[in-house]
Amino acid sequence: MFETNNLDKISCSVESALNDYLDAISEEHLEFENISVEDSLSRILYEDIMVKIDQPPFDKALIDGYAVNSSKIAHTSITKPVILQVIAEINAETKNRTAISDNQAVKVSKGAFLPENADSVISSEDVVQENEIIKVLKSVSPGTCVAKRGEDLVASEVFIKKNRKLRPQDVGGIIGIGYCQVKVYKKPVVSIIPTGNELVPIDVEPDVNQIISSNGYVLKGFIEQLGGTAKISSIVKDDLNQVKSSISKALEVSDLVLVSGGCSAGTKDYTLNAIRELENSKIIANEVEIRPGSHILLAFVENKPVIGLPGHPVSNMTSFHVFGKPVLKKLAGTPRSFWQDRKDTIKLDAFLAKKIFSPEGKEDYVRVRLLEDKEGKIIAYPYTGQSSFLSTLVKSHGIVKIPAECTGLYQGDRVEVLLF
Amino acid sequence: MFETNNLDKISCSVESALNDYLDAISEEHLEFENISVEDSLSRILYEDIMVKIDQPPFDKALIDGYAVNSSKIAHTSITKPVILQVIAEINAETKNRTAISDNQAVKVSKGAFLPENADSVISSEDVVQENEIIKVLKSVSPGTCVAKRGEDLVASEVFIKKNRKLRPQDVGGIIGIGYCQVKVYKKPVVSIIPTGNELVPIDVEPDVNQIISSNGYVLKGFIEQLGGTAKISSIVKDDLNQVKSSISKALEVSDLVLVSGGCSAGTKDYTLNAIRELENSKIIANEVEIRPGSHILLAFVENKPVIGLPGHPVSNMTSFHVFGKPVLKKLAGTPRSFWQDRKDTIKLDAFLAKKIFSPEGKEDYVRVRLLEDKEGKIIAYPYTGQSSFLSTLVKSHGIVKIPAECTGLYQGDRVEVLLF
Repeated sequence: MFETNNLDKISCSVESALNDYLDAISEEHLEFENISVEDSLSRILYEDIMVKIDQPPFDKALIDGYAVNSSKIAHTSITKPVILQVIAEINAETKNRTAISDNQAVKVSKGAFLPENADSVISSEDVVQENEIIKVLKSVSPGTCVAKRGEDLVASEVFIKKNRKLRPQDVGGIIGIGYCQVKVYKKPVVSIIPTGNELVPIDVEPDVNQIISSNGYVLKGFIEQLGGTAKISSIVKDDLNQVKSSISKALEVSDLVLVSGGCSAGTKDYTLNAIRELENSKIIANEVEIRPGSHILLAFVENKPVIGLPGHPVSNMTSFHVFGKPVLKKLAGTPRSFWQDRKDTIKLDAFLAKKIFSPEGKEDYVRVRLLEDKEGKIIAYPYTGQSSFLSTLVKSHGIVKIPAECTGLYQGDRVEVLLF
Repeated sequence: MFETNNLDKISCSVESALNDYLDAISEEHLEFENISVEDSLSRILYEDIMVKIDQPPFDKALIDGYAVNSSKIAHTSITKPVILQVIAEINAETKNRTAISDNQAVKVSKGAFLPENADSVISSEDVVQENEIIKVLKSVSPGTCVAKRGEDLVASEVFIKKNRKLRPQDVGGIIGIGYCQVKVYKKPVVSIIPTGNELVPIDVEPDVNQIISSNGYVLKGFIEQLGGTAKISSIVKDDLNQVKSSISKALEVSDLVLVSGGCSAGTKDYTLNAIRELENSKIIANEVEIRPGSHILLAFVENKPVIGLPGHPVSNMTSFHVFGKPVLKKLAGTPRSFWQDRKDTIKLDAFLAKKIFSPEGKEDYVRVRLLEDKEGKIIAYPYTGQSSFLSTLVKSHGIVKIPAECTGLYQGDRVEVLLF
């Protein structure tokens, strides 16, 4: 087994492995669903949202006051005020639109529509009212204190382009322009298969030689944050047939399958062979120039992506960040806009607390713990210990990427930390 | 009404209003709940998580190989190999711990515990095996390929400090060290009361003078993203008694009440007076040096925070960001660590596309739309239009804050954009 696996390793750089893999994933067959706009927060829009009617749908008063035709009061002044007859009042309850003639005005409340022939609203402070008459003390320019019909949005223009990940204000906006339903991409379903004879489920007390299976919960959390639905399968023993049948079963209900563990080159690592033996399978990469996690396995079975993630917690999570995340984002219909990317990958600059050595030829991901010093400078303390230690993931705040061609970083170097 | 409201305005800077308000909110009475760790993603830890048993719980092999006592093979070499007897095999299924004596070794699988008296694991590649005997070709230093008991975590140390917002790896970590349940802060319940005669609910076709109530959905989205539970109350008419009774009812089931609209100084703005007339109420600020949204209302009723947010969508959302968000974070038990803050408020640097004027004495929040130019430079296009236009919130990517003492920014200025 050991030899077989080694014979045909497909080793390549992170970038080429990832690009090859992403290129092979088609977005064509991504499905949509109709959901209530109220439930659409953080979902990804499947089609453009069009404006149905002009916004505002009418010329609208922006203050309480009197709707007037500005041209008819152009020459008014305190000493020679133009006198207008107030023929009606329009407020939020009014439904009929009146019209004013030359020497008329209508009292309006903020938000009310304007009568016909009016183009501006004059504040109560700039008139003297006497019964049904106002004396206008000041002229106004056309459009004063009025939101024109269609000034905000014009019917049939695109309001929100498809593929946006909907923010709270987008949800409000879609509701505000009159939609109750919205078409969004279906959430990709990701199955996580934990493998390993040493694993026990969360509700079992582990023996001295056993470990509680926890990688699946870490992956599940990230998948949910990225807009996917995660299913954690039952733990699978290190057994070729069990791994094979578990992948097959998972594929029936998933858009992406993550096999956690069993993809290294040990005597009990069956993921690679399991995938090879499944029908319609294709290996894109099974050795990548990355640390930790070089034994990542990128494959397709029945045209669906299947990723083998190394079992050690740090390698597991790092590999998911580097390979699983972009795959999941593509399956979710997530846009590749710079501002969405910025929201999905939060970074900050810090200064290295100590030297890090890095092997040349491998893209290196180093966990760091961040502390703020007295002057507010952020210092990154690297962890270079065991990738089997889940605790360093918990104690660290982010990762620093060291490019393949770089052999290390010095104390005091400014580094970009990806917060996780 | 207009005069009454104006008579006793409590106008102050954003910073002093917010600090006074936050200081008056006690964290003492925040409650916890016990939940399944599996459901604890993004919840905030109420008490420290302690390590129950050493991790690893035993000295553990990091590779497949032979467990040996390094001192006994210190002088081995290819020409004069030390010969050891392989007395047993330990793998993930083994439950009994054997012991080795001076000339003995045990075959171990990766992840298995070491026998007594062994301190290192030597790779199969560095030995020649013949039946029950190995010839050791290379010496190893103590601890080679072994994770020592407690090397990762020591029993009774603090694993995660309270008040952390749990990330996926924290959830996995807590599961990994043997917890099924975890104590987290209860999610704060926020009631949102939409007020305004012009508003209709989402499922009603608006008349020409009506508007679909949408602010509540924007607020709800932000509240959920911040870890709160949002309840949108029925729309309340501009009527003093209705506003009063709606606030009273909401307070019975909420930790924070947001009244949307009705807090300006118009004839139909009843929020301020409604709060004043309720028992045990206290106004902290009802006029703040901010734009948009100076008519923000910060109050307490029955010791619970009640915030009156201006009704125009842009003012509504901006006020919530500036005042509502920090209040909600405090009620949720969210830590004020720099890295959690960085995750909650994602910023990027951009260059202003055109001049912005800003009134002196008011902290100004300007929406910007971001575009990347050909060289990858991010350009911020400001919107300075109507705060009644929900669409500008949808079209913009973030806000730029202009300090009160600043009277404007120039084209080309580097600005920090808070993404929303």
